[in-house]
Amino acid sequence: MQRTKIKELLTGAEVGNDVLLKGWVRTKRGNKYVNFIAVTDGSTIQNLQVVADAEKFPEETLKDVTTGASVAITGELVASQGKGQAYEVIAKTIEVLGKADPETYPLQKKAHSLEFLREIAHLRFRTNTFGAVFRVRNTLAFAVHKFFNERGFVYMHTPIVTASDAEGAGEMFRVTTLDLDNLPRTDEGKIDFEEDFFGRATNLTVSGQLEGELAAMAFSDIYTFGPTFRAENSNTARHLAEFWMIEPEMAFYDLKMNADLAEDFIRYVIRYAMEQNREDLEFLAQRLQEEDKAKPQQERQEMTLLEKLEFVVSNQFERITYTDAIDILVNSPAYKKKKFQYEVAWGVDLQSEHERYLVEKHFKKPVIVTDYPKDIKSFYMRLNDDGKTVAAMDILAPGIGEIVGGSQREERLELLTQRMDEIGIPTEEMWWYLDTRRYGGCPHAGFGLGFERLVQFVTGMGNIRDVIPFPRTPKNAEF
Amino acid sequence: MQRTKIKELLTGAEVGNDVLLKGWVRTKRGNKYVNFIAVTDGSTIQNLQVVADAEKFPEETLKDVTTGASVAITGELVASQGKGQAYEVIAKTIEVLGKADPETYPLQKKAHSLEFLREIAHLRFRTNTFGAVFRVRNTLAFAVHKFFNERGFVYMHTPIVTASDAEGAGEMFRVTTLDLDNLPRTDEGKIDFEEDFFGRATNLTVSGQLEGELAAMAFSDIYTFGPTFRAENSNTARHLAEFWMIEPEMAFYDLKMNADLAEDFIRYVIRYAMEQNREDLEFLAQRLQEEDKAKPQQERQEMTLLEKLEFVVSNQFERITYTDAIDILVNSPAYKKKKFQYEVAWGVDLQSEHERYLVEKHFKKPVIVTDYPKDIKSFYMRLNDDGKTVAAMDILAPGIGEIVGGSQREERLELLTQRMDEIGIPTEEMWWYLDTRRYGGCPHAGFGLGFERLVQFVTGMGNIRDVIPFPRTPKNAEF
Repeated sequence: MQRTKIKELLTGAEVGNDVLLKGWVRTKRGNKYVNFIAVTDGSTIQNLQVVADAEKFPEETLKDVTTGASVAITGELVASQGKGQAYEVIAKTIEVLGKADPETYPLQKKAHSLEFLREIAHLRFRTNTFGAVFRVRNTLAFAVHKFFNERGFVYMHTPIVTASDAEGAGEMFRVTTLDLDNLPRTDEGKIDFEEDFFGRATNLTVSGQLEGELAAMAFSDIYTFGPTFRAENSNTARHLAEFWMIEPEMAFYDLKMNADLAEDFIRYVIRYAMEQNREDLEFLAQRLQEEDKAKPQQERQEMTLLEKLEFVVSNQFERITYTDAIDILVNSPAYKKKKFQYEVAWGVDLQSEHERYLVEKHFKKPVIVTDYPKDIKSFYMRLNDDGKTVAAMDILAPGIGEIVGGSQREERLELLTQRMDEIGIPTEEMWWYLDTRRYGGCPHAGFGLGFERLVQFVTGMGNIRDVIPFPRTPKNAEF
Repeated sequence: MQRTKIKELLTGAEVGNDVLLKGWVRTKRGNKYVNFIAVTDGSTIQNLQVVADAEKFPEETLKDVTTGASVAITGELVASQGKGQAYEVIAKTIEVLGKADPETYPLQKKAHSLEFLREIAHLRFRTNTFGAVFRVRNTLAFAVHKFFNERGFVYMHTPIVTASDAEGAGEMFRVTTLDLDNLPRTDEGKIDFEEDFFGRATNLTVSGQLEGELAAMAFSDIYTFGPTFRAENSNTARHLAEFWMIEPEMAFYDLKMNADLAEDFIRYVIRYAMEQNREDLEFLAQRLQEEDKAKPQQERQEMTLLEKLEFVVSNQFERITYTDAIDILVNSPAYKKKKFQYEVAWGVDLQSEHERYLVEKHFKKPVIVTDYPKDIKSFYMRLNDDGKTVAAMDILAPGIGEIVGGSQREERLELLTQRMDEIGIPTEEMWWYLDTRRYGGCPHAGFGLGFERLVQFVTGMGNIRDVIPFPRTPKNAEF
């Protein structure tokens, strides 16, 4: 007999037939006459209830059917008489494939804290919460590819190990095969990176954007979706040392087209997850409401998770310039009551508290802020005609803050090299980047979206470490 | 007017309408009365021919319309009178967005060697060959996700930076933020990795398999698709230091189910590329035939690229045990004529020449070799009842060699730890891996497929550096 997954069994298509299911025991309850075994196989958040006549099975077997054990069970799929499920299986055979000693198995029935589960990240996939989170993550990842594929974008694998620093900022991880106990030295006593694997000093990439631009100058529209790295010692709920980023780059796009695409993209992937993972999201919404109950009234969410997602997919994002954003902030009650910790003034970057005010208090929806002062943005952003702002955009989401950062790129060779000189980026090393402006350059734009921030937004998980399988953070590279 | 991509214009749907196209000039020819401008925008391998009445446009403008320049052109889409294209555009306006000085632009009309193009990898996307290769790569990547998504597999992002060595072999890149000029030392004078970013020594992953197994024990079926690394000093046409790997892992699978899945998978993604990228593959097939003409008769391919792909998708792969493979080799004419350079004997690993003999001479189709001697395979492979072989499988493809390596995994804790002890893999550090055998373990299997090898197989490109955007190899991390 071939195994059927629980998601399929629960459609009831095979009702009346004998079926084979395989999975892990979530709970067992019952009495000396009958056992009710809830089995999960990860295909859905729902368990399948197996009814086992205790007289039919050796006590030895049923004793091993404990939380976490893996089982293969055959039986008839029938409409359930009990509450809580539409179908159940009346067991004919039960085989325990792998036991899980109740004395030592860490995941017992009781709810565990997210902190504890992080320490057993190899087992947390088996909980309802993380099962739901990673099924949603999977759906979002697929939606990313589907969105771009439908629009003719070419997926580019930009390099992970790189000799360049895309942002001109951001601390990087060194990648080396040099023997650290016996470092080769040049005549001047410096470390001789010519002896290193790549013949030069190399790092882990902080962004695939610059390489993405090269490909956009041939395929018109490309995107990356790969890991990026920051060696920043930030031990917060918002930062990871290793995270996945999506970076589309489009030839012949201006800032408005860029913002339109980003907005369409975010709506599309959220809608797709809402269609594909309804049950998971309902569970996560409920989880969030439970969590909220422990908080003081004013910190609780105004909308449930599903209401928030519905709101985002059915409303246009607000669009304002940085200059207008500063005006709003300076004229806000919060500012007048001196509630902001950080300075608000034209030319100073927006802090998290300011972004949250704009998104959560003022507009109550995602906001696209554009045209930032050039001095607080990257060298490759296109200078506006005012000479003091650049065609940048950040998308700010409720509860998350910045979820997208993008810009129209400076395609004018002279202005670009002038800016690089100003802030000390060596133009010789970037010959290949500048070639795209020398040969057939054109107006183009792109953005970057941190995938984990998106997963957080959709799942409502508060800590970024809970939306990536094995988080990498300062002092932590376990598993 | 909104821009239309050339792929869409060439369907003719907009014939009779005025259209706006944007892209790059491939060639310009003509006389003082009329110019024929071939424009590409990367959406298809086909160019769009633009007909420009020389009298209508300033000489200044047409002078800048050179190979590589980026242009925006409006005009009427009409059925073409000339040979070679069904539709063309009669230009009304021509704007040169970015020039490409013919004196210095490296990509002129003449054919360039693949070696030369590798040195300008930032521009090679603009050639017919690399345009086709990377469009096919994109399609294959999408097909990977589509295949697994349709089967309910969960996509897992396993960590890139890791403190473990999945294979127990394979040279690794060190990842560090320690100041190499001032390395912290312990009291015993050793480098103090507790001071490093992650509080321990870390490397770039060689495989996501072990982490994948953890997730399969919750979701049943998962896959990874991410970058992996080898710090091997192999300067060959088959090796990269950074490459992308696909690693599915399935609970409740045995070796046969594993092989079935791998075979279905390979056929599926190739068929998908044949449907989606017909023109690109026809071009690459022709390219290969041209290349073949320069070779001696006996080195030429027996089938064209498309014939080969058609053959693979419509024929079952051959399946033999390692023991049978050795028999075939020992009884082969090649062996008797001492044509093999390396030893053929039970217990010795198959070399490339042996694999090629089996695939290209003996069976003339892809071959799945199973049940290798345990001593030449990894510790995590399941010991067969004979006590001397393991449930391993390699899939060998014509012209490429090993394209898939996989196995049923050893789920029996005792046998697994015994094997780890035998070959000196520390079981304490791998507590999390062994936990999957302690708690609800079950028979399971998986495989790894090198994505670039697959792209090579489908595109017919002989050098692996020509199927990844920016290859990373010894002494080379340019771009």
